Amino acid sequence: MPPFSVTFPVRFADVDHAGIVYYPRFYHYFHVAFEEFFRLRMGSGAYVDLISRRRVGFPAVRTECDYRAPLRFGDMVRVDMRIERLGNKSVRFGYRALRAEGASGPAGEVVADGIVVCAVTDLAQFRAIDIPDDLRTLFLELLADPG
Amino acid sequence: MPPFSVTFPVRFADVDHAGIVYYPRFYHYFHVAFEEFFRLRMGSGAYVDLISRRRVGFPAVRTECDYRAPLRFGDMVRVDMRIERLGNKSVRFGYRALRAEGASGPAGEVVADGIVVCAVTDLAQFRAIDIPDDLRTLFLELLADPG
Amino acid sequence: MPPFSVTFPVRFADVDHAGIVYYPRFYHYFHVAFEEFFRLRMGSGAYVDLISRRRVGFPAVRTECDYRAPLRFGDMVRVDMRIERLGNKSVRFGYRALRAEGASGPAGEVVADGIVVCAVTDLAQFRAIDIPDDLRTLFLELLADPG
Amino acid sequence: MPPFSVTFPVRFADVDHAGIVYYPRFYHYFHVAFEEFFRLRMGSGAYVDLISRRRVGFPAVRTECDYRAPLRFGDMVRVDMRIERLGNKSVRFGYRALRAEGASGPAGEVVADGIVVCAVTDLAQFRAIDIPDDLRTLFLELLADPG
Repeated sequence: MPPFSVTFPVRFADVDHAGIVYYPRFYHYFHVAFEEFFRLRMGSGAYVDLISRRRVGFPAVRTECDYRAPLRFGDMVRVDMRIERLGNKSVRFGYRALRAEGASGPAGEVVADGIVVCAVTDLAQFRAIDIPDDLRTLFLELLADPG
Repeated sequence: MPPFSVTFPVRFADVDHAGIVYYPRFYHYFHVAFEEFFRLRMGSGAYVDLISRRRVGFPAVRTECDYRAPLRFGDMVRVDMRIERLGNKSVRFGYRALRAEGASGPAGEVVADGIVVCAVTDLAQFRAIDIPDDLRTLFLELLADPG
Repeated sequence: MPPFSVTFPVRFADVDHAGIVYYPRFYHYFHVAFEEFFRLRMGSGAYVDLISRRRVGFPAVRTECDYRAPLRFGDMVRVDMRIERLGNKSVRFGYRALRAEGASGPAGEVVADGIVVCAVTDLAQFRAIDIPDDLRTLFLELLADPG
Repeated sequence: MPPFSVTFPVRFADVDHAGIVYYPRFYHYFHVAFEEFFRLRMGSGAYVDLISRRRVGFPAVRTECDYRAPLRFGDMVRVDMRIERLGNKSVRFGYRALRAEGASGPAGEVVADGIVVCAVTDLAQFRAIDIPDDLRTLFLELLADPG
């Protein structure tokens, strides 16, 4: 069981001229999971508060993705999210995208595995800061193996 | 009661440099409602079949939108969808976007009213065709005033 | 001769599952022309200054578009921009998109005609303001018929 | 001197709610360089022919990006493109994005370094194929170190 999952449809315009989901779009799908985690745990306005009032953000410093199978319009995608490493000033998120349902391939097939390393950042100064305690607590649930 | 509604969050990247939802994005929101109507009524693969196998599509021939209030990240948007006119070869869809929830303004506030006129189109020849009977039946539910 | 034009390629991901440019994308193309007008007349940083320092913006209050022919990946699009009405607190921009070059149809074919009405807006208060004099002067060049 | 470069403005809607270019967008910037390489070397319609007629495509199988500095609206971005490895059935492209001009940081600053590994693919069967000779010849120019 992944710590957190969201499922949503591939959109009509998510594909490119080759008829498959445009590869940068997978990183957007990962971010949708990230947004939904905050929204469902803290409420619609919480992430805005974090960014706009507390001026704390999570800019990506490194991303990676292995694309394992094409995804197409008509498919439902499920994104599993976990934290692979919770550092002092950075978090390494792991994402896995699967075809939840759809005609373009088997349901349950892994279509992409990705990593997004975020620096917890003071957006006013744009420098890395220690992860605030409330966020650290929030993130515990996502630890793949809390050890 | 609108004939059909969907509610979803404004995404982190839906805003522009001015911090409000980029105005072309509202037409995407309208299309999301359109896609969800097909998906929820006919199944995930039905619209793909229509486009890719039957080669029937709904290219927009005219769109209009009045923007009534800004929408921001942190808001939930509800899109109401109806059909204002069901012609022989074209359909005039009416969309209304409301802030369903959020800090950027009152819940329930109308943020945009739009129109999308689609020509029912043979995609192989790219010419307008009569609306197939099964689609006409499907659309009856969306008629604002079936008369 | 249109007052201002920009030409650029349709991008690989601008199309949707039907293989034609996703209709909301045309409004983005119009905005690209708008951005380029400011950039080429006032420099790269000028529009940012306007928005972020002077807190003056141009949110759309109404948009319209008639789609006349499909546009596809492989086409070059030219967007002509003019001002149809320069009001006290609002500007009515007229845009025309043409296939400048490409295999999907005749070069020079008009593919879309659109309108974007913007309210000149104090972004801090989000209320309409009189068009500042420097912008009014800038816009004169775009008047379709300065009369 | 990089083998191939393109320079273009950050667009108004490329930024996210944090006011910096949305991180998936950098992969789109890389793809813009890729598209421009084909367009400028082979003409507007050549890549379409490749995909749609010859049914040869370049789906990404792995991507990586290190984000070194934020990029903002008002900046011009330059993307340098090279080939780091030209295999039998795959190509490893290396991209570097720099702030060519702009107020958000020093001109010339590297903002992102990325990798896109593409499998040369028969799109009809969706399986990897040997790189066709004409493409191999085309790619020679991009070899970082042709050896």
